[in-house]
Amino acid sequence: MGLIVQKFGGSSVANAERVMNVAQIVTETYKAGNDVIVVVSAQGDTTDDLIAKGKEINPAGSKREMDMLMSAGEQISIALLAMAIEKLGFRVVSLLGWQAGFESSSVYGAARIKRINCDRLRTEIGQHRIVVVAGFQGLNKYDDITTFGRGGSDTSAVAIAAAMHADKCQIYTDVDGVYTADPRKISNAVKLDEITYDEMLELATLGAQVLNNRSVEMAKKYNVELEVLSSLERKPGTIVKEANNKMERMLISGVAKDTDVSRISVIGVADEPGIAFKIFSRLAAKHINVDIILQSVGRENTKDISFTVARGQGDEAVEIVKQFTSSVSGKDIVVDNNVAKVSIVGAGMESHPGVAAKMFEALYNARVNIQMIATSEIKISVLINQDDADRAVTAIHAAFFD
Amino acid sequence: MGLIVQKFGGSSVANAERVMNVAQIVTETYKAGNDVIVVVSAQGDTTDDLIAKGKEINPAGSKREMDMLMSAGEQISIALLAMAIEKLGFRVVSLLGWQAGFESSSVYGAARIKRINCDRLRTEIGQHRIVVVAGFQGLNKYDDITTFGRGGSDTSAVAIAAAMHADKCQIYTDVDGVYTADPRKISNAVKLDEITYDEMLELATLGAQVLNNRSVEMAKKYNVELEVLSSLERKPGTIVKEANNKMERMLISGVAKDTDVSRISVIGVADEPGIAFKIFSRLAAKHINVDIILQSVGRENTKDISFTVARGQGDEAVEIVKQFTSSVSGKDIVVDNNVAKVSIVGAGMESHPGVAAKMFEALYNARVNIQMIATSEIKISVLINQDDADRAVTAIHAAFFD
Repeated sequence: MGLIVQKFGGSSVANAERVMNVAQIVTETYKAGNDVIVVVSAQGDTTDDLIAKGKEINPAGSKREMDMLMSAGEQISIALLAMAIEKLGFRVVSLLGWQAGFESSSVYGAARIKRINCDRLRTEIGQHRIVVVAGFQGLNKYDDITTFGRGGSDTSAVAIAAAMHADKCQIYTDVDGVYTADPRKISNAVKLDEITYDEMLELATLGAQVLNNRSVEMAKKYNVELEVLSSLERKPGTIVKEANNKMERMLISGVAKDTDVSRISVIGVADEPGIAFKIFSRLAAKHINVDIILQSVGRENTKDISFTVARGQGDEAVEIVKQFTSSVSGKDIVVDNNVAKVSIVGAGMESHPGVAAKMFEALYNARVNIQMIATSEIKISVLINQDDADRAVTAIHAAFFD
Repeated sequence: MGLIVQKFGGSSVANAERVMNVAQIVTETYKAGNDVIVVVSAQGDTTDDLIAKGKEINPAGSKREMDMLMSAGEQISIALLAMAIEKLGFRVVSLLGWQAGFESSSVYGAARIKRINCDRLRTEIGQHRIVVVAGFQGLNKYDDITTFGRGGSDTSAVAIAAAMHADKCQIYTDVDGVYTADPRKISNAVKLDEITYDEMLELATLGAQVLNNRSVEMAKKYNVELEVLSSLERKPGTIVKEANNKMERMLISGVAKDTDVSRISVIGVADEPGIAFKIFSRLAAKHINVDIILQSVGRENTKDISFTVARGQGDEAVEIVKQFTSSVSGKDIVVDNNVAKVSIVGAGMESHPGVAAKMFEALYNARVNIQMIATSEIKISVLINQDDADRAVTAIHAAFFD
């Protein structure tokens, strides 16, 4: 009994049959005595198809018009889901982002949710209707439609759950929860019953791709309990919530692999103060996120600086570093795309100093060479040769979970 | 120099190439020194495809959700057209029905425009932007999206032209104007330079299908000058406006054929007062439009009543009449679907009594038998055998225009 927000992604509503399946899940939740607000994405490839239509006409079309174009996708899926729910005999109403009260910043294509005016949502819930809301979209101060960027529908769902003080926010996907490793690769990967917001944030960053970071950050901020579960199976998923005593018994919660990495090494820069600052401030100015940084002493009063960036930003990062080094102390720049980042994440590792050693031992036994190491309070990442990545994940997973 | 409203139908924006063509027309009008508001329909078959998607999930889905679903079609086309206009280097903004200020009645699927709040339109025009507006859609008092039914985009365009006091409303279609007869059938059909609202109304009713009646009625009411022209050719079309002296010289403005007709005859009803009233009030109660009515004396104190309805309403009309006659004076009911209505329309015929005679003479010479006749101030219609229809149109057209 309570208010439950359920979010279904594009693949969960990709065709008529799946829309009916979602309608079943939603109405079962309603029949169990809950109020239900459902957030849906555009069907299947609809968003990509709409973008392609726009790009065909004008590859440099404005982001305002692109948002107008894309947001039609969710409009179609909310109407279809509402009709499916009507077919099952329940009272329902679909609402566009602006009808549901989503007020956003003005940045088209990547708007932030500023506020949800819940009046209409409350009215519809008060009339015992199931409410189907278009994810990913809001309205800015000019009364123009905006979209929220990648993972925007997850963020919409968490924002509604926070604003409406929902009891739970269920994120339905095509996996049935969060695993200790990619279950397609690691046969004995274990599904987690619970995980903390911070662990989930690290796993999302590390390429587990179950939940978008923004939505987890918002859930953490407003203490919204999330559940990640499958729309194709009827079984409990993984709960994402604040740490508690029970959860802390688990040393690490997952092993993740990220191959979307480039390593850039600047060899033999002058060993003088401010070089690192100058390089990384230039990268930051161009919105390039640097992940792991390693600085080592080179030969003859020089030093070597290595860092990793997302693969897609590798070329731009090299250009920026080249311009800088040629103007100051032009040296060799080496780019390595054949790398992978493998990480373990666990809220328990803070109080267990042996975790890093155990990870490194597993890698040593598997003959995996470590290029770089980075640590945070709940994460240890190593950069290794990409060819070793799957072997490394298997070895680490076995060391901690077998 | 002035404000021009241009409306483009679904086939005019069916693909990327056609959208670019429309952008050319619009920007040429703008470059000539005009402010331009463009109203567009959904692309090609988009609306039908969306309806099919909805019906697949729930054939009995609510009209509210159907409007939510369908209105996504225009949203896509306005964004695409705006991007095309951006590509040509012009300032442009696309607006959904509600953003353009369309306030409608609450009847989903067939809403009437109550008012246009022109604030936003004026602001955008004031900033010298070309404004692209989604036709066919508005917002009702519940803040829900409504659609305007058949011909809704034409009506949207005329309503904007009226509310913004535009100098002209151009309706672009796939024909280049209004003809004295269907040019695909009658080789020497003549394109009219001008036609009156009333003539256009009669022609629209009679199946000329160039302009929707509702939009012509609104244009007449608010004295909006319409132009019907082709989006594929750059030449003047047909102006639709109030009658003036020049126009009255033309005796008739067109010959039209309508095969979407059923003739229903009720044979041998009692010859007593109120029979006709009772039949037609029952039909009216079921929203069945009766067109031509003929009542004649039958045998033995009975009479025969014949009338025509749209083909699609024939079965329902027969059912209604059957129920009535069986309860009162059950007689034969005959339905004939093999009929056609051929009409001539002309504001000039009021002052020229020989027009009907000339039409009947042409039909006699072509050996076409007339089943029923109906006349109005500017129209003469005959109901004939459908097999004779094309021959009848040719003969009448030749009599008046050769």
